[in-house]
Amino acid sequence: MPFGYNGKILHVNLADSSWAIEEPGEKWYRTYVGGSALTAYYLLKHLKPGVDPLSEENVLVFACSVVTGSPLSGYSRYTVAAKSPLTGAFGRTEAGGYFGPELKFAGFDAIVVRGRAPKPVYLYVNDGTVEIRDAAAIWGQDNWVTLEKIREETGEKMVRVASIGPAGERMIPYACVQNDLEHYNGRTGMGAVMGSKNLKAVAARGRQKPQMADPEKVKAIRKWHNDRIKVHPPNVGLSKVGTTGLIKGLNDTGILTTHNFRDGVFDGADKIGHEAYHKTIFDSPGTCYSCAVRCKRRVALEDEKYPLDKRFGGPEYETLAAFGSLCDIDNLPAVARANQLCNLLGLDTISTGAVVAFAFECFEHGIITEEDTGGRALNWGDGDAMLWLVEEIANRRGIGETLSEGVKKAAEIIGKGADKYAFHIKGQELPLHDGRGKTGMGMGFALAPTGADHIECPHDVAFQGEGVSKLHALGIFEPVKPLETNAEKVRFFVNGQKAWQINNCYGICNFCSVPIHAMTFQMLVESVRAITGWDTSLHDMVTVSERGTVMARVFNNREGFAPKDDRVIRRWHEPMPDGPLKGQYIDPKAFREAIDLYYELSGWDKDGKPTRGKLVELNLEWLIDESHG
Amino acid sequence: MPFGYNGKILHVNLADSSWAIEEPGEKWYRTYVGGSALTAYYLLKHLKPGVDPLSEENVLVFACSVVTGSPLSGYSRYTVAAKSPLTGAFGRTEAGGYFGPELKFAGFDAIVVRGRAPKPVYLYVNDGTVEIRDAAAIWGQDNWVTLEKIREETGEKMVRVASIGPAGERMIPYACVQNDLEHYNGRTGMGAVMGSKNLKAVAARGRQKPQMADPEKVKAIRKWHNDRIKVHPPNVGLSKVGTTGLIKGLNDTGILTTHNFRDGVFDGADKIGHEAYHKTIFDSPGTCYSCAVRCKRRVALEDEKYPLDKRFGGPEYETLAAFGSLCDIDNLPAVARANQLCNLLGLDTISTGAVVAFAFECFEHGIITEEDTGGRALNWGDGDAMLWLVEEIANRRGIGETLSEGVKKAAEIIGKGADKYAFHIKGQELPLHDGRGKTGMGMGFALAPTGADHIECPHDVAFQGEGVSKLHALGIFEPVKPLETNAEKVRFFVNGQKAWQINNCYGICNFCSVPIHAMTFQMLVESVRAITGWDTSLHDMVTVSERGTVMARVFNNREGFAPKDDRVIRRWHEPMPDGPLKGQYIDPKAFREAIDLYYELSGWDKDGKPTRGKLVELNLEWLIDESHG
Repeated sequence: MPFGYNGKILHVNLADSSWAIEEPGEKWYRTYVGGSALTAYYLLKHLKPGVDPLSEENVLVFACSVVTGSPLSGYSRYTVAAKSPLTGAFGRTEAGGYFGPELKFAGFDAIVVRGRAPKPVYLYVNDGTVEIRDAAAIWGQDNWVTLEKIREETGEKMVRVASIGPAGERMIPYACVQNDLEHYNGRTGMGAVMGSKNLKAVAARGRQKPQMADPEKVKAIRKWHNDRIKVHPPNVGLSKVGTTGLIKGLNDTGILTTHNFRDGVFDGADKIGHEAYHKTIFDSPGTCYSCAVRCKRRVALEDEKYPLDKRFGGPEYETLAAFGSLCDIDNLPAVARANQLCNLLGLDTISTGAVVAFAFECFEHGIITEEDTGGRALNWGDGDAMLWLVEEIANRRGIGETLSEGVKKAAEIIGKGADKYAFHIKGQELPLHDGRGKTGMGMGFALAPTGADHIECPHDVAFQGEGVSKLHALGIFEPVKPLETNAEKVRFFVNGQKAWQINNCYGICNFCSVPIHAMTFQMLVESVRAITGWDTSLHDMVTVSERGTVMARVFNNREGFAPKDDRVIRRWHEPMPDGPLKGQYIDPKAFREAIDLYYELSGWDKDGKPTRGKLVELNLEWLIDESHG
Repeated sequence: MPFGYNGKILHVNLADSSWAIEEPGEKWYRTYVGGSALTAYYLLKHLKPGVDPLSEENVLVFACSVVTGSPLSGYSRYTVAAKSPLTGAFGRTEAGGYFGPELKFAGFDAIVVRGRAPKPVYLYVNDGTVEIRDAAAIWGQDNWVTLEKIREETGEKMVRVASIGPAGERMIPYACVQNDLEHYNGRTGMGAVMGSKNLKAVAARGRQKPQMADPEKVKAIRKWHNDRIKVHPPNVGLSKVGTTGLIKGLNDTGILTTHNFRDGVFDGADKIGHEAYHKTIFDSPGTCYSCAVRCKRRVALEDEKYPLDKRFGGPEYETLAAFGSLCDIDNLPAVARANQLCNLLGLDTISTGAVVAFAFECFEHGIITEEDTGGRALNWGDGDAMLWLVEEIANRRGIGETLSEGVKKAAEIIGKGADKYAFHIKGQELPLHDGRGKTGMGMGFALAPTGADHIECPHDVAFQGEGVSKLHALGIFEPVKPLETNAEKVRFFVNGQKAWQINNCYGICNFCSVPIHAMTFQMLVESVRAITGWDTSLHDMVTVSERGTVMARVFNNREGFAPKDDRVIRRWHEPMPDGPLKGQYIDPKAFREAIDLYYELSGWDKDGKPTRGKLVELNLEWLIDESHG
């Protein structure tokens, strides 16, 4: 067989500072490829069900894919995965930037970390060398200082660093991992897992650019793609205003998450939207490795109360809505400042914003009182109260100690009916999307193995316009109906999810890929062919994508998750109070039927467990006992 | 949506000589495409379960696909389908030649025929015109006379004719349909259905060549494909000796069906193999529309006893083995003469050969006696006895009356344990392949909706050599193991079947397509894109293919077929008596488990019924009640 690809996987055991290199071979790479599928493989292989996510038994994986480090726009994402301390389920989160490609240039497709270091360390890989270094000098420091110190210690100005802040060290279950201060593996608390392992950072430097199987073809696709990015409207929009344009877009259509997920319109939308953003705090665009989109924003503000430093990355849509509309806050500098604090301290902005909104609503209803806050009022719309809470959380102080557990556990601790206002799925706070106005996203949230997660599923809106015709390649010929939960919608969702998960397994950014953005399925397949030399196809790639989804599902099933956990939040079953979608709600019975139908379409049984047949179809017969044992 | 394709379907009701033209629109074409899927659509829509296949209620469909008539090698196959009088199940059979493209040039993608004409007629379509013509002058005539007369009557020398011979008129349930005397829709008795409708022939003439969406690209793919055909070993072999080389190939590996499916080696193989063939009876190669392979053979022999006329097409592998090794006959001129008789009279050579072998074995065991045959001995190896039987069957005379029913019903009529020697699956006699040596083929026979059928499933041998790496595009990376029935094999089969059924839905010849022959999956997809302008993909094409399989399955389920019918023959469960595979057999329990696992992999329930989820996945929710009602 003409197999050629043979990358390296670095296995590190922090308990005894040992490490080893695995070369799993081409068949394995064709099967698990990277990202979501690759990390799920190691978690399923090396984790026993029931392990405490913050114990030394957890396994933490940093993973690129077989196409990471190629010079195409958006082919730079990498994944961090472990059992999540926030959900107890499959934890996984992607980030762009430069760390993923640099890890590849250093000679590794992935790093699998086991054990707990006796004292704080960081891992340094450089052109095939591996060092486990003392982190005493950086433990307790924020992400900025950490980055500077590691540059200094390694003497490599261009070293790329994935690190945690104090929040991760304190094992706050929604602590994030960052790289280069602008790029975040935000969700499912992977920062806490690093903290639990005494692993402050992973630093990578390399000069081994991966060889392209067909360099001329890669070059030609790159040119075609980047030329298209310049004129393709959604990409043009991203280049111009990043994701900040969504504030206005979603508010105008009545689905801007507002007031702790109750409302779909926000009076202050203009004050936190892209126009205000670019007039008042915008400094310059940022980008990821070899990407022509440049969707990232840097912000700067000389202000005593809300100082903003351009080194630390500006808020994107999710953060604007989390700290803005969700908390009824229209004070943009305060929102951007909250973002910067999270970035430095290492907190996920989505969960943190949702925790603040939860605290505000509990305060409104007298569930949290000034007695709990040391006399501090927590009123809707109060940006300063929000900033105070962020620091209390990161430092686990006072009410912050409780809130640092996330809304689910915090509500359990607080009691008094606080759970009525604690919005999460499988324990994870929701990204800023309202399923009442896009039921495909709603299904995605319900079904994501990571808990509520917007990177897990197709955005209904992504399949409007040109996105619709791109679905033809998936055998879907109906326009997508954002408000439906019927069989047609389930079919769309299943296919859309397969398409979307390709990006998570191949480490490709949704903003450069199919369906909404400049890429087409045809060229996506061509690009993987040209980079790897594999005779792949959309069928093959969809199989990999489904394999990733199924492996994560098996992981969760053996942790005890069940169909009842595949649900959305109470507020989406209540009529939208106002705005263009006033009165719209998700019917619980119809939604349950849609989820059950999804199981059937996916080859899962009534208990939501992938059948033996599905596992065999996906070359996963080694999981039959795991799924049905 | 950028939909452009809009072909025409001709609906004819022979009962009142009416006709109408349907333009089902692009979404429909993208869903049903052609061939197997398209015909299944009309049978499911217009047939009620339980209809007598030879009654006026049966529906008969002639179907091209959206790519038929394009100038690529092998893109010329068309399908005839109806409820089968041989099996009572989904009847469907493909043929190459020139008829399919000509039907397309005449303006139609398909013809759906209902009702029974009060007296014999033939249908004539010419550049969009439709005529139902009197067939008095040709009724009772053989296929040669029929063709000549229709050429004369229409004044079109290049008219293409799909006709039946006397066997079809007599509604022999394995009567075939032929076109141009060299190309046969052989299986499942579609000739009998034409006969039952008093429809002697369909004649087509047209000058409307379909427009290619990207003519330059089609031209380039054609050149690439035809250049490859010239050097790609399996195609070179086909160009040189057609399929006749298989006699030696299969005999050498111990799986040449011999002695009514008992043996896998035949002493007389050399006498009926490609060398003898080309030395003694070969005249010239034949071909299909725009095909560079030229695998067809014409034979000629001036011989008093076994005269062969080159106009009538020479025997291919299946026929050589059916009349040769299966009957222990090594008399090549007699075998070729039996083929010619079947061609003229309109009998399927596979079923006819199997019926002869059955008769020989019954005679050996005293179940058929000279009393039954009017004193004629029916001994193994007797070519003259075979020729006598073929004429008796076609004319439904004496023992031929009984044998003309096929082995299953004949055995019921004969009694005395004749069923012990009647080898069929779902009522259809077996093609000349031994499942003991290629279990994938065995599964294909067991599961084919048409009964034992070699065009329904992947040939294990097709996935050796280069074929293995082609499977990578399907996500299969293990070499195929021809003797296994384990999970790996089932996975191969499911994927292989999906690939194979693409050909049956898109009307592409297996000898030009993937996996064994010159085509690649990538170029196959490219070609459909270039011809139709559709943004298709291998994922989309595999979905169409699976849709075709599932629709046929639903058709059979509602006719009462059940898992017990998905079986192979007794002799394959018995050890191979001799040759390289001596001792090899299919374990019945393991085989049953493999079939059950196939259901699971396919999203079918334990009763072999496609689940509601599978139907929704495939845009077939309109069949939920049909499958589960």
